[in-house]
Amino acid sequence: MNAPISRMMLAIKKTQPQPGLTWQPQTRVPGVGPGDVLVAVTHAAICGTDRHIYEWDQWSADRVPLGVTVGHEFVGRVVAIGDAVTRTQIGKRVSAEGHIGCGQCEPCRCGNGHICERVDILGIDCDGCFAQFVKVPQENIWPVHDDIPDHIAAVFDPLGNAMHTVMAAGVSGRSVLITGVGIIGMMAVGIARAAGAGTILVTDTNPDRLALALELGADLAYQAGDPDWPADARKATQDQGPQVLLEMSGHANAIRQGLGALRNGGTAALLGLPAKPVTLDLPNDIIFKGATVIGINGRRMFETWYQVESFLLAGRIQLDRIITHQLDMQDFEKGVKLMQSGEAIKVVLKIPHDEE
Amino acid sequence: MNAPISRMMLAIKKTQPQPGLTWQPQTRVPGVGPGDVLVAVTHAAICGTDRHIYEWDQWSADRVPLGVTVGHEFVGRVVAIGDAVTRTQIGKRVSAEGHIGCGQCEPCRCGNGHICERVDILGIDCDGCFAQFVKVPQENIWPVHDDIPDHIAAVFDPLGNAMHTVMAAGVSGRSVLITGVGIIGMMAVGIARAAGAGTILVTDTNPDRLALALELGADLAYQAGDPDWPADARKATQDQGPQVLLEMSGHANAIRQGLGALRNGGTAALLGLPAKPVTLDLPNDIIFKGATVIGINGRRMFETWYQVESFLLAGRIQLDRIITHQLDMQDFEKGVKLMQSGEAIKVVLKIPHDEE
Amino acid sequence: MNAPISRMMLAIKKTQPQPGLTWQPQTRVPGVGPGDVLVAVTHAAICGTDRHIYEWDQWSADRVPLGVTVGHEFVGRVVAIGDAVTRTQIGKRVSAEGHIGCGQCEPCRCGNGHICERVDILGIDCDGCFAQFVKVPQENIWPVHDDIPDHIAAVFDPLGNAMHTVMAAGVSGRSVLITGVGIIGMMAVGIARAAGAGTILVTDTNPDRLALALELGADLAYQAGDPDWPADARKATQDQGPQVLLEMSGHANAIRQGLGALRNGGTAALLGLPAKPVTLDLPNDIIFKGATVIGINGRRMFETWYQVESFLLAGRIQLDRIITHQLDMQDFEKGVKLMQSGEAIKVVLKIPHDEE
Amino acid sequence: MNAPISRMMLAIKKTQPQPGLTWQPQTRVPGVGPGDVLVAVTHAAICGTDRHIYEWDQWSADRVPLGVTVGHEFVGRVVAIGDAVTRTQIGKRVSAEGHIGCGQCEPCRCGNGHICERVDILGIDCDGCFAQFVKVPQENIWPVHDDIPDHIAAVFDPLGNAMHTVMAAGVSGRSVLITGVGIIGMMAVGIARAAGAGTILVTDTNPDRLALALELGADLAYQAGDPDWPADARKATQDQGPQVLLEMSGHANAIRQGLGALRNGGTAALLGLPAKPVTLDLPNDIIFKGATVIGINGRRMFETWYQVESFLLAGRIQLDRIITHQLDMQDFEKGVKLMQSGEAIKVVLKIPHDEE
Repeated sequence: MNAPISRMMLAIKKTQPQPGLTWQPQTRVPGVGPGDVLVAVTHAAICGTDRHIYEWDQWSADRVPLGVTVGHEFVGRVVAIGDAVTRTQIGKRVSAEGHIGCGQCEPCRCGNGHICERVDILGIDCDGCFAQFVKVPQENIWPVHDDIPDHIAAVFDPLGNAMHTVMAAGVSGRSVLITGVGIIGMMAVGIARAAGAGTILVTDTNPDRLALALELGADLAYQAGDPDWPADARKATQDQGPQVLLEMSGHANAIRQGLGALRNGGTAALLGLPAKPVTLDLPNDIIFKGATVIGINGRRMFETWYQVESFLLAGRIQLDRIITHQLDMQDFEKGVKLMQSGEAIKVVLKIPHDEE
Repeated sequence: MNAPISRMMLAIKKTQPQPGLTWQPQTRVPGVGPGDVLVAVTHAAICGTDRHIYEWDQWSADRVPLGVTVGHEFVGRVVAIGDAVTRTQIGKRVSAEGHIGCGQCEPCRCGNGHICERVDILGIDCDGCFAQFVKVPQENIWPVHDDIPDHIAAVFDPLGNAMHTVMAAGVSGRSVLITGVGIIGMMAVGIARAAGAGTILVTDTNPDRLALALELGADLAYQAGDPDWPADARKATQDQGPQVLLEMSGHANAIRQGLGALRNGGTAALLGLPAKPVTLDLPNDIIFKGATVIGINGRRMFETWYQVESFLLAGRIQLDRIITHQLDMQDFEKGVKLMQSGEAIKVVLKIPHDEE
Repeated sequence: MNAPISRMMLAIKKTQPQPGLTWQPQTRVPGVGPGDVLVAVTHAAICGTDRHIYEWDQWSADRVPLGVTVGHEFVGRVVAIGDAVTRTQIGKRVSAEGHIGCGQCEPCRCGNGHICERVDILGIDCDGCFAQFVKVPQENIWPVHDDIPDHIAAVFDPLGNAMHTVMAAGVSGRSVLITGVGIIGMMAVGIARAAGAGTILVTDTNPDRLALALELGADLAYQAGDPDWPADARKATQDQGPQVLLEMSGHANAIRQGLGALRNGGTAALLGLPAKPVTLDLPNDIIFKGATVIGINGRRMFETWYQVESFLLAGRIQLDRIITHQLDMQDFEKGVKLMQSGEAIKVVLKIPHDEE
Repeated sequence: MNAPISRMMLAIKKTQPQPGLTWQPQTRVPGVGPGDVLVAVTHAAICGTDRHIYEWDQWSADRVPLGVTVGHEFVGRVVAIGDAVTRTQIGKRVSAEGHIGCGQCEPCRCGNGHICERVDILGIDCDGCFAQFVKVPQENIWPVHDDIPDHIAAVFDPLGNAMHTVMAAGVSGRSVLITGVGIIGMMAVGIARAAGAGTILVTDTNPDRLALALELGADLAYQAGDPDWPADARKATQDQGPQVLLEMSGHANAIRQGLGALRNGGTAALLGLPAKPVTLDLPNDIIFKGATVIGINGRRMFETWYQVESFLLAGRIQLDRIITHQLDMQDFEKGVKLMQSGEAIKVVLKIPHDEE
């Protein structure tokens, strides 16, 4: 073992098949295999997925095993490495890709590990980062650049979702409609602007979010329920509709309206996850339109990470208005509630360590 | 006027808001504007769309104006041209693209006239080719190569649908599932084979069609209703599912099963038109899968036409088993009925001309 | 004829096989065929090509027929149209694409008229726009948006060269090296910035140009002769080199250095025209690097035009520092000399009309 | 150590800075680190690169360290694995990718390890497979399908070069010119045919190779020195030239003629390595043509490997006429000489093992 590490640690776990998460003051520090890296987490961020697990919705109940340590967005320092680890060193400040591919299937071996069929996701399928220590395979480690502060390094994962969506759709010089400006949709506004989008339009039900999206680079913001927005949006886009749709809400109506608004020949990237099957008018919304619809899962390993780093280092994306709260780890429940109320967008938890 | 043409002609029109088409022995030959070309039709083919108009389904009732001459697949000879016509000459053997774009919108001016929002379709929105003469703008004229026989030149339009679908999806070296081997699906089998597809799988409800698809190049054929086909198809494609889906049926179940079977990261091209909205499990069928879904409308003008010509001249696609019937024009009703019964796949009508 | 137009006009022609251009006070106004549009030119811009014709270099001597009216960048008003013209009307303010494709070859029929083998270029192969009137086929006419002022509408052609280069290479989120910031290279700086480029580096021999490029959006500017620039450029681009090269100089050294600097897997778009064959180290500069090199010719008809319009209307590109001079038509020789001295970047000529 | 392995082995090494290779009856079996796999080689194939090292040309003298065991194309069985190896097991029949990326740079982490700047190549930069045992990192191991015989499994590497070139260019439905039908060019003929190429044209100086290329799927074969071939090739490709060039010769004239023949808007993939700088007419060969030129290095890890496997299992590529000789390991010199004389195309060496 490379460094003296306490054997027990703080962690936040899902222990009961009901709403809530459990503070665990004494859980075992993960053991480290030959290819693993142990990271002392200093900052972790609460994802919408963590909120779903907290709320114990149907998806969570079907997928998440009780007893798992939650959380998958983080930054920290390497404190131990396995014998075969060559890609990082003790002491390095790192984050990590939370999708742990099998490493042996065709997608994994072709640079598409984000769509591995046997993927394990940190904090969902195996123990995550709402803990003092987290274990990650060395392939997943991301070295954090010195110029990127901790609270921002902790949110590379959702920034990566937004970046992957924007880049997969291709926004350079094209008008863009973003349906839903929650955490990732809001990040996508700034990323799309920096990536060269033309007119950016957003829809949401929350007027504060719409106002913030305008401040962050959107040109026009529409109440999702306003029946006139599609006509207005069309007028604002050469009477043809936006060339790109970034669907970030997961709401059936938003998906249908977004596809309906999309320009003939346009591209739609779907990131939001509808809770139920969605009924679509395929001929008018996709087929006659000659549209291209792209499903977005996770982030590309590691193109997306390099892109996020590059945009951050160049000062091309601003997160001060999006990371609204930094709380102590033990206030995680307050963080979830701030997100539920809509008061918070992104909440970062600070993880305590005696010796640091 | 460039050539002596009789002023009246035979035509097949939609005249009543009910099933059927009307034989018109004396209808006026179209007049020719400065940019128009008048073609003496020698062979015309019956499209599935013509059958819909014959049957007067809801789509037809909503779209097709009574009085229109139907038909849009044909070959013939140029008999008159307007003053500004420079792209063809009297006497040339020609076919034509049936989508008449406005010529002024962004798609039309960017090589994407097939998705012009103001497109008129020959035989649907304006008078078509089930007649002794048809008028077409010079931009739409396609010069037919001498080595391509008439009955094949008459079906460039549906061959083009199949080719556009295959090429948009990209089949080279990839496993391909074709759901629905009707006219266009059957054409797609041979085109996909010639275009370099790996394993080709097909589904249909008609066992004769499945058998023919195997003869034309498919590797595996499945009864669409067989609950085991998705598992078998997966086994046949490296236990990952086909890399490409060409959806040619328009049936909701086929669309869902096809997307369900598609490999992670795969591409689906949708050509078949569902009559009703389709309910999809977007997370599992598109989003998590990282799939790309492409809507296919018409044919690209004129890449697709060049591709069809090139494959035909190289002897890379065979149509003898697909063009099952050649009938005289007046037997058009028999042709429709042969299609309805499933006995015919593609029916070509021979158009009579006294002087030829 | 649709409007009373004087039969004679002012024009600037190439009349002698030697340096210089000739002021022609009485040349015949072009006749208009059925598909043609006659435009009363109000503003025309001097291209580098016009300067070559003025200087009568080897390329000009080989290509340009004596007697031709030069010039291909302009804006004006439609004053007459042929019988078959449907895409514009008398009185409209228009510019035009100067590449006149044959309309019948495969590239022309597939949206790639810019690479038609039989292309005629306005002001080179046929009479151009340094005249009171110019004749253009209706397919080439571009309707100018009301919000775009004349002196800017006159330079859509070179803006289109820059836009086509930037868009073909794909700069969104990528570091970009522009070798040569003459007229088009300078335009490319602002376009690349607006299109979402990451770090932008430029090289040139002219220090004033380098300074201006920095003002217009470049991050780093290097003297082309400085032996240290490639090492510095590499450091500024994650120690890997720029991901994109936009070659705008046509100088052999710049091409070699640019390709040498390019990141493995990067994309180079070549616009500059070397006067002589260029010797390349193909293994190291292209093959081992896995680079993609794209030849850029003209502008895409008409994607590029729509893109230029869209960027201009959104205020995303600034030309005030690039269009340095607006002169009266008869001062064309002064304009050429200002360009030769480097004092001017872009010069616009105002064309007089009594009646306007 | 996982299996009893003799400590000494047979190997073929480069030991002297002059033509030739040295038979080493007693060289040490490589040691295995935690992430390494030791393979008992059963079949190894001689690459053109091995021949260059044998001949000790300038490239070899500059790059290859004396003492290295040569060879990088092979198949064998895993006989030992390091502690951290999870992707293969003792007893498995395997081949391996010979490009050993650093694993930490941007290309390596983004699925582009073939263009890693710090790549080590097996048998060039480190000990290779002309030996009884070879050591390979587990990331590079390729599991060989049971249905693929040994002598074919041994040539996945050059098949991969050909496949990568064909797939990068995109041949489906397009006419293809292959300049140079040596080992990889000959493999490319069959692969291009299987991948859906239209007309395939080849050039070479060796008439036997041209004859064989015709048997393997080429439509037209030209003597490279015949001044009329470009005109003939143009006629055979719709009077426009081939849409794709696969440059496999590395000869300056072939590169220039190939680019000259290429259709406007076409794609050239360069694999052949010219020994000296090549002088190109960039305006006519690339820029005006709007051509795309792609540098090809190695194979994609591991898309290309999956593609090769898939084509082989489907019986879509035939190698019987290309793997012309199978020799005992000690006859390696004979193998090189057969290649030098042109009598052999591909030579496979059988590696002896007492216990097998």
